[in-house]
Amino acid sequence: MSAAQAHSIPEIARRVPPQALRDALYSRFGDRFSTGAAICLQHGRDESAYPAQPPDAVVFALSTEDVAFTVGLCNQHRTPVIAFGAGSSLEGHLLAVQGGICIDLSRMDEILAIRTEDLSATVQAGVTREGLNQALAQSGFFFPVDPGANATIGGMVATAASGTTTVRYGNMRDHVQSLTVVTAEGKIIRTARRARKSSAGYCLTQLFTGSEGTLGIVTEATVKLHPRPEAVAAAVVNFPTVTDAVQAVIQAIQMGVPLARAELLDPLTIRAVNAHSGTSLTVAPTLFLEFCGSSTQVTEQSAVMAEIADGLGGGAFQWATLPEERSRLWTPRHKAYFASLQLRPGCRSLTTDACVPISALAECLAETVADIEAAGILAPVLGHVGDGNFHCLLLIDIDNPDEVKAAEGISHRLARRAMRFDGTCTGEHGVGLHKMGYLDEEHGTDTVEIMRRIKRALDPNNILNPGKVVGF
Amino acid sequence: MSAAQAHSIPEIARRVPPQALRDALYSRFGDRFSTGAAICLQHGRDESAYPAQPPDAVVFALSTEDVAFTVGLCNQHRTPVIAFGAGSSLEGHLLAVQGGICIDLSRMDEILAIRTEDLSATVQAGVTREGLNQALAQSGFFFPVDPGANATIGGMVATAASGTTTVRYGNMRDHVQSLTVVTAEGKIIRTARRARKSSAGYCLTQLFTGSEGTLGIVTEATVKLHPRPEAVAAAVVNFPTVTDAVQAVIQAIQMGVPLARAELLDPLTIRAVNAHSGTSLTVAPTLFLEFCGSSTQVTEQSAVMAEIADGLGGGAFQWATLPEERSRLWTPRHKAYFASLQLRPGCRSLTTDACVPISALAECLAETVADIEAAGILAPVLGHVGDGNFHCLLLIDIDNPDEVKAAEGISHRLARRAMRFDGTCTGEHGVGLHKMGYLDEEHGTDTVEIMRRIKRALDPNNILNPGKVVGF
Repeated sequence: MSAAQAHSIPEIARRVPPQALRDALYSRFGDRFSTGAAICLQHGRDESAYPAQPPDAVVFALSTEDVAFTVGLCNQHRTPVIAFGAGSSLEGHLLAVQGGICIDLSRMDEILAIRTEDLSATVQAGVTREGLNQALAQSGFFFPVDPGANATIGGMVATAASGTTTVRYGNMRDHVQSLTVVTAEGKIIRTARRARKSSAGYCLTQLFTGSEGTLGIVTEATVKLHPRPEAVAAAVVNFPTVTDAVQAVIQAIQMGVPLARAELLDPLTIRAVNAHSGTSLTVAPTLFLEFCGSSTQVTEQSAVMAEIADGLGGGAFQWATLPEERSRLWTPRHKAYFASLQLRPGCRSLTTDACVPISALAECLAETVADIEAAGILAPVLGHVGDGNFHCLLLIDIDNPDEVKAAEGISHRLARRAMRFDGTCTGEHGVGLHKMGYLDEEHGTDTVEIMRRIKRALDPNNILNPGKVVGF
Repeated sequence: MSAAQAHSIPEIARRVPPQALRDALYSRFGDRFSTGAAICLQHGRDESAYPAQPPDAVVFALSTEDVAFTVGLCNQHRTPVIAFGAGSSLEGHLLAVQGGICIDLSRMDEILAIRTEDLSATVQAGVTREGLNQALAQSGFFFPVDPGANATIGGMVATAASGTTTVRYGNMRDHVQSLTVVTAEGKIIRTARRARKSSAGYCLTQLFTGSEGTLGIVTEATVKLHPRPEAVAAAVVNFPTVTDAVQAVIQAIQMGVPLARAELLDPLTIRAVNAHSGTSLTVAPTLFLEFCGSSTQVTEQSAVMAEIADGLGGGAFQWATLPEERSRLWTPRHKAYFASLQLRPGCRSLTTDACVPISALAECLAETVADIEAAGILAPVLGHVGDGNFHCLLLIDIDNPDEVKAAEGISHRLARRAMRFDGTCTGEHGVGLHKMGYLDEEHGTDTVEIMRRIKRALDPNNILNPGKVVGF
């Protein structure tokens, strides 16, 4: 794939739902079936830079049976079907490039079970991560995966999402125990029982996780919970260079310090958050850290980290332990995306998602920042250092073709750079439309062909979110 | 499946390798190709109770290319091909029920890379877990998954193995970052890059993990490592009842105590190990525990655990912190299998592998022990409590059909009991031949049909370990 191809949508014939299908859906769903232009438009885009591609109709599902009914009917009519959660995906996942029916799962927001003895919860796909954590507020347990956006659990399963807590708790793959899935034929299957581990056959749970609605539609998920830590400490510290900051995190991990979060903000991001949040952080590569555990553990981890940082030229630590103070200290990180957009009012962010082995992170970051500077694009950089994953927010005027082209060039070179370091073009956002062209290079054509065989075996009529991930 | 069918091997026509295939293999491999009866017999069995089913020939591979050559040729000749590591599987995984070629990977024992900054290692499939840990001895890092047997990493990937440390560190699924796999067509693919996470397409890494050589043959694996903890403490403590012991572990996990190991031995197992190791442990439900971390953490965790145990009527703790003392304290657990066999010299153990949500573990255990007693079979029981996984060692005279039938009845009822508690018929041993009949009940026929579609898509000639897991 060339950079120029990045945000053009491939020309594929739309498969318009026949009247018989529309009639059958209207007959079952009544006003939960809509062909209204505004509703369809709203369901034809995500947070990516792609122009909207609306579906022909939207079904608002309330149950797994609603989804099964719709998918089964779409399969009979060879009509595309796309699942929609919070609409917060970033790579064009939700665009109805071949038309068809969008199934909005956001009303499937019931928490079906919370089992504190088993440290698990079962939720409908439309439950958001914040909704789940609110339901857990009094339980002493929480669900840690935090991609930033208040995404739905179903959407987070679909993209194998991760985020700021992954360094400690893992990503969605590490938290999904079992899924209820509607297959291309409209059958309802469950991928696993509730045992914490199993060797009973092929791991369909992980196959559907990260498949972006192209192999089946996830309607319920059983996820792992964690006990809320007794104590939490947050810290902010800056370093002379990005390499020093990255090394500090690597050393901490190597010493077994279980960092709860370790986020890097580059100087430009710090400038953005200072302007936005009224803070006066030193404009330098900065780590936002969090430690958790018992009070003793937190004290001990904090001391080890302070010593490591000191050895690498780190500045003075700012600490916070009380919830409100921690929240205030971390505000710049949490607001980094919106603060960055304010660096250039009216701009859009084309957000990259490279992830490399952590030993290569500093070098990959340095090359990337040099590339961004050479291209003359304003781009705050922030990263989940412990995972080797970082995002460049390429701030562009979406109506300026030169800027779009420059940004796509950076994005393209970064994807290829990540692969050169034996990393991936997407650490957590997924493939959608935008990264499809990299899979052959990342995995090799024989590997992608195996993926495509699976797609054809599970969705022989190519109705499930067609034209995404590996195509057909 | 009825219990009576359990250890009978289905009658399937053998697919004898044609002479042209034999000639081609001999021509490439010379004395690394063997049709000798003793060699074939040795490769036609595992640690299960099944009678041997030897392959027609054995290839001793030294490289991924050797494997690819062999599989590609077998595919052309529609000849079964079975990968062999240490031979320590427990459910008939390795039996050549349709004849064919066994590929012995045990000579592929090279450690290809150790990367301490990335906390990962890449090994050939024939490296054993002990071999990997010996190579890591001076590095400050270790590979934690410990299924008991000194299995090969390839075999552990194939069965999604786990073991005593899974409660803290996770199982093989949590440790496999990337695999090199030979496909049914003899192509060499790599399932992922070395980034610690990725959302780039379908997760083939997890699909091949636990597929028991039926979808491809794993020849290399990149696995996660962990820093060696600064301090380790081992403890042994008994409880009035199994329920109390299980509750102690559940409470510890709920409080966030990161138990490194938590193994339950029932009174009969304690009796066996006392006799075998000359110990004088109280004959009662007993937990073997391990804590690790910094010295402060270990002290703190130990104190919390002691308090929990005290509240549940636990006896006095025996503690050990020095390596030799810890090793001595844990010897009864490590020798439990062999000690149990000595309860009845000359017997074989039919070993069960149920795994249930931990909230159901005590009840499932109680029903199982009652069933064992009613059947009059001698059967020590030990469990990985934190995972909800336990093993009954059904000690039988393999030549006594009544005993075999009684043991298979217990095993059968236990598998179904585990499913009744929303658990699995196999937590870590895998399906092999022995658990095939339970998959429909555990997952539902529509789920198993999805698995079978994947099998047919990836291995259209059904040459890869045919007649195992989901069949064809």
